Formats: sequence, C-alpha cells, structure tokens
Amino acid sequence: MELLKKSFEESSYLLSGHGPRNVAVLKQAFGNIDGEIKSDMYGSGEAINDFEEKMAKFLGKEKAVFFPSGTMAQQIALRIWCDEKGTAKVAYHPLSHLEIHEEDGLKKLHSIETVLLTDRDSVITLEDVKAMPKDVACVLLELPQREIGGQLPDFETLQAISEYCRENDIMLHLDGARILETLPFYGKSVEDICSLFDSVYLSMYKGIGGIAGAILAGDEDFIKESKVWKKRHGGDLISLYPYIFTADYYFELRKGRMADYYAWAKELAVKYNSCEGITTLPELPVSNMFHVHINKPVEQAAEILALVQQASGIGLTGNLREIDQDNCYYEVSLGDAYPAVPKEIIETAFRLLGEKMNGD
Amino acid sequence: MELLKKSFEESSYLLSGHGPRNVAVLKQAFGNIDGEIKSDMYGSGEAINDFEEKMAKFLGKEKAVFFPSGTMAQQIALRIWCDEKGTAKVAYHPLSHLEIHEEDGLKKLHSIETVLLTDRDSVITLEDVKAMPKDVACVLLELPQREIGGQLPDFETLQAISEYCRENDIMLHLDGARILETLPFYGKSVEDICSLFDSVYLSMYKGIGGIAGAILAGDEDFIKESKVWKKRHGGDLISLYPYIFTADYYFELRKGRMADYYAWAKELAVKYNSCEGITTLPELPVSNMFHVHINKPVEQAAEILALVQQASGIGLTGNLREIDQDNCYYEVSLGDAYPAVPKEIIETAFRLLGEKMNGD
Repeated sequence: MELLKKSFEESSYLLSGHGPRNVAVLKQAFGNIDGEIKSDMYGSGEAINDFEEKMAKFLGKEKAVFFPSGTMAQQIALRIWCDEKGTAKVAYHPLSHLEIHEEDGLKKLHSIETVLLTDRDSVITLEDVKAMPKDVACVLLELPQREIGGQLPDFETLQAISEYCRENDIMLHLDGARILETLPFYGKSVEDICSLFDSVYLSMYKGIGGIAGAILAGDEDFIKESKVWKKRHGGDLISLYPYIFTADYYFELRKGRMADYYAWAKELAVKYNSCEGITTLPELPVSNMFHVHINKPVEQAAEILALVQQASGIGLTGNLREIDQDNCYYEVSLGDAYPAVPKEIIETAFRLLGEKMNGD
Repeated sequence: MELLKKSFEESSYLLSGHGPRNVAVLKQAFGNIDGEIKSDMYGSGEAINDFEEKMAKFLGKEKAVFFPSGTMAQQIALRIWCDEKGTAKVAYHPLSHLEIHEEDGLKKLHSIETVLLTDRDSVITLEDVKAMPKDVACVLLELPQREIGGQLPDFETLQAISEYCRENDIMLHLDGARILETLPFYGKSVEDICSLFDSVYLSMYKGIGGIAGAILAGDEDFIKESKVWKKRHGGDLISLYPYIFTADYYFELRKGRMADYYAWAKELAVKYNSCEGITTLPELPVSNMFHVHINKPVEQAAEILALVQQASGIGLTGNLREIDQDNCYYEVSLGDAYPAVPKEIIETAFRLLGEKMNGD
C-alpha cells in the first residue's frame, strides 16, 4: 500500500481532481487581489458579505453565510430545524458525512438523534421518507450520494420528497457539497434544485476546488440564527478571507465547467469497465464522480495499480479501501487535471491495467 | 460616533496594533513560500505538524494542535477536563471571553455550568479559587485579563493558584491569547508560565498579528482528545495552511518584540494620564495593552476624539464603549504601528486632546 501511495505521488499526470493541493492554489487566486483590500471582521465587511450575497442569489435563496467547514454548517442547519420543530431527530442516509466522518458531532454537541433512511447501498426513495417516524424534524438529502459512487435519485423523486415534506411539516436540507456537479445530469439550474429544499449547503473545495469553506443558504431568519451558532461553534473567525477570495476565484473559473467534468467521468468509466474484474459504481456516472470497484484482494489490487502508475506515469489513486477479502475500491472525481493528460498515455495505462487484471 | 469611525479610518497613522488588517498581511507572509509546498490535509502533513511541534516545544508542552479559533480551542479544552473529572462545571472570570463573547457556546454545545470567580473589576486571587464549589473540574485563568485593561495577578499568585489546584485535583487552563505580551512584565519565560497550567491556549493574531487561528497545547492524551472534538466542532478543515504559514511568519517576526510593545504601552499611558479627565486602566500597564477611560458622556468623548484624529492625522480609536452616562472607554494594544508615528505628531495630538478635555 505504501508503494501505491508513493507511485501516485510521483506521477506525472493525474486523472482525478484539479491538480495538487499546494500553496500555488492560494497564490494563483490572490495574484490579482490588491493588498489594500480589507479583511472581513467577524462575519462583517465587503470581503465576506459580497460573496455571501452573490451565492445566495446564485442558489436562489434569501441569504447565505460563509462557514469554515461543511461539517459545521450542516450540524448547525439541522440544529436550527430541530429547535424550530421542537424535536431533536433528523433523518439521512446511513453513509451521510454526518454519520461516518464527523466523530458524532451532531450527537455529542447537539444531542440530536438520527434516523437512517434506506440501506447502505441504496439511494433514498420517497418510500423511505414516508416510512420514517413522524417526529423527524428534518430530512437531509445528499446529492450526489458520495459514499456510493455519487448516485442520484431522479428529479421527480426529489420533487415528490420535497412535496411530501412540505405537506407533513418536515424540513428538507440539501447536503449539496457537490450539487453543481449534478446539474448537467439533471439538466436543471441550481435554483431549480435548491427551490425544493429549505436549506442548502455547498462546498467550496470539491468541484469548485477552493482551499476550504462552505456556503449555507436559506431564508433570512434561518441564516440569522445560523450566525449565532457559527459563533458558538468557534467558526466566526476574525478573518475568513483567505478561503473566501479563493472560493470566489475558483467558483468563477469552474462553475461553467461541470458539463465537461461529467462528460469526462462517463468517458473514463467506460475505460475502467472495459478491464476484466473492474466495474464502476455507478456503471454510467451521473456526475463528475464514481467509484472504481476491483475484484481482487486489496494488497493485490494495490500492487497492480502501483505497477500501472509507475509504468505509465499516470496517477490513478493513492489509496484503496477494502470491501471484503476479495474486493476493494477507490474514488474518482473528474476535474481540470484530466484534459492535461495525453490521450495516448491514458490508452497505454488502461491497456496495461487490463492486462494485469487478466493476470498477464 | 460615525464621525469617530470615519476619522479613524482616514488617519495617516495608528497608535494601536500592527497596521491595517488587509490582504497585504497574507501576501507578505506568503511572498517567500514556494507554490509547490503541499497543503496540510485534515490535520496531517508537514504544513501543520511542523508548526504544532514547534509551538509545543516553545510552550514547554508535550503536544500542540492548531485550531481555526480560540473560541473552539478553549471550549474543547474545558470539555475534555470536565469529562475527565466527571463534573460539568468550570470556573473563570465574569468577563471571560467564554462568558461574554461566544453566545454561550460552552453552555449550549457542552452543557457546562460556569462559576464566576471574583467581581467584574477585579483580578482573580487565590482566595477566589479557594472559595469556589468543590466540584469544579477546571479553573480558567486569562492572562492578561483583557476586559479590565489587561491586568495581571503577580507571579506568586499564579504559583499559589497552580499549587492549590494540583493539591485539590482541579485542572488549570490558561487563556493565554496574549500570554507572550505578559512575559516582559513577569520577567519569566513562556515555559515558566505554562508549566503552572495543564493546558494552554495562545492566539495567533493578537500580539503575533497573524490572520486568524490558535494553538492549544498540553499533554499527549489531552491533545489527542482535542483533535476528536476539533472534528466534531467542524474545525478539522481540509486545509488550515493559510492561517498556519502566516502565524509562523508573524510569530518569528514579532516574538522578540514584546518588550518593546510593553515599553511603548507604558510610555503612551503616561501621555493619556496627563490629560485631565482621562485615566488608563491599569494606570501603569503590565503588558502591551490598557484601557483608556474618559470621564465624559460617550457622544461628547467621540466628538473630542474625532476632532483630535482629524487635526493630527493619528488614529486613536474607531469606537467607544459606554460605561455609564458620564464615562466611556476604549482599548489600546501596542504593536508595530507605534514606532512609525512621528514623535512630534504624537505630542501635538496629546496636547490637543488635553486642551479639548479641558474644554478649551
């Protein structure tokens, strides 16, 4: 596994992402920003408020607030809806970020109970929402559902869930960390999607590729309350501008490229699926991402991938996650790095990968 | 009051601080940092770990962790000590940052009860600590006590409180946002001070003058646990390097200047105290900071200060806080801005201030 990581780090090209996460990301964004421009101060000032207004408008919501992290933004959104409904219970996917990546912050800090909708391998359906306990204050939908390869319900299902929640006085929150990446598949505007939800979170460093940070959007009262909780969490920093100016820069640079990322994901998935013993989840991507499932023990798969990386100079992945003793997977998210890789080198890499998977 | 703010913003010189909080602060720090240098990743990587190790060593503690804010770091420190002692009760000054500036995060997120030691105008004494309920898990001491002008107990009192807490199985936490600024007065090393405490917080943007961020230091188990809570709070950002590299840069630049800041504070306090109706708190500063108390109604004081600022070009303050209908105050913290102000302009400003306070 060390060899996999090493060969990935030494690659000349990357298939995933926007390129290395290094200081150049900051320098590029700040290159044309005047030194005289004032810092935001504890959530006030043009440096933060202008971007918040822009993002509120973009998402079709009354107001927006910039958070240092999505973890903080989403816990707070759920807390506000629970307080409003007077019941400390929310419902989401069993592989939601809040359930598996946040050390139970929602439970430990906010004493909120969680209802897990559907099983780990499925996308949430209207039936799942209808079957949940009646006292759920808020349903969180993650679009795309990252931990199952970025799968999506169809738009009609979203509409039906939204309608059901409104009729039954249940709040609906969008974990839209990667929502921009789904727009080409849905063929909808971001406002079309967001209008189905009471509150929306958008990450600044997934498809957008900023340094860090998140936007939370909703109606005026909701956002006002979220700022109080932001201070309580320790997220109301004196200055967030290093994240805000970079978020704005890369948002402008990449918001129009999501259709390309989606097209490249479909193209790349075909290449993976052509290798024996490799399948992508979903088989046909619905955003810029998918998971690569390899029907080999994790150590053996790591060896094969490392060899392909060393031989081709293309970085496919730096890590692998075990599913069971015969299967493992890794995640792919298409971005600006992909078109920089010469086509013939990609062909060589996948031919080699196919051969090695075949045992040649 | 608008005129006060406007005249402050238009000043050519500032008596307080290190200069404007603008994008140049970031650009200066990143000027010599290579674009190829890798980002930290969720608390890992040289970009964060090197600075954490350096600060742990500097403070004389086993380990340290970089936090986006002091608010987050301190709530977490107190939560860990409460969990360890099995009692959700801490004690601190009635004007502690946690009590008045954090929207009750400690109470709302951690359900921790607070005991207020001493009255609002006093420094905490050994007797205050001895008189508190026996089930307090942790005492927090803020050095200097910012909201009363940065006053300090003497070193012997610190030693006695530390000894009492250790004998009585009470944890002692240092709110050392401005601890470096107290070292010239105490004539001690930072390790001497920190050795009296079980955990220590240091701000990166007070005397050091970084963009934002904080260091929390303590023993290995404590720091390990603090990283779990950092994730729960939403503070374990994918990249904190914009704050870390600037913190490191300005720490190196300014850690040796605290004696100058302290000397200038004493010099400047004399000038204020020479004006009729103006007194500084403390009269003789014990760090780089003090409060300027003006024996005038707040609107009248604002008018006088605005006039002095306009006439001299020196910014004294952009805001005033009312104490009662006859008195108001503002805060002064000496830094790199002070020596850039020509002495004769300072003399002119204070002569004018004295005259206006006299009603001339």
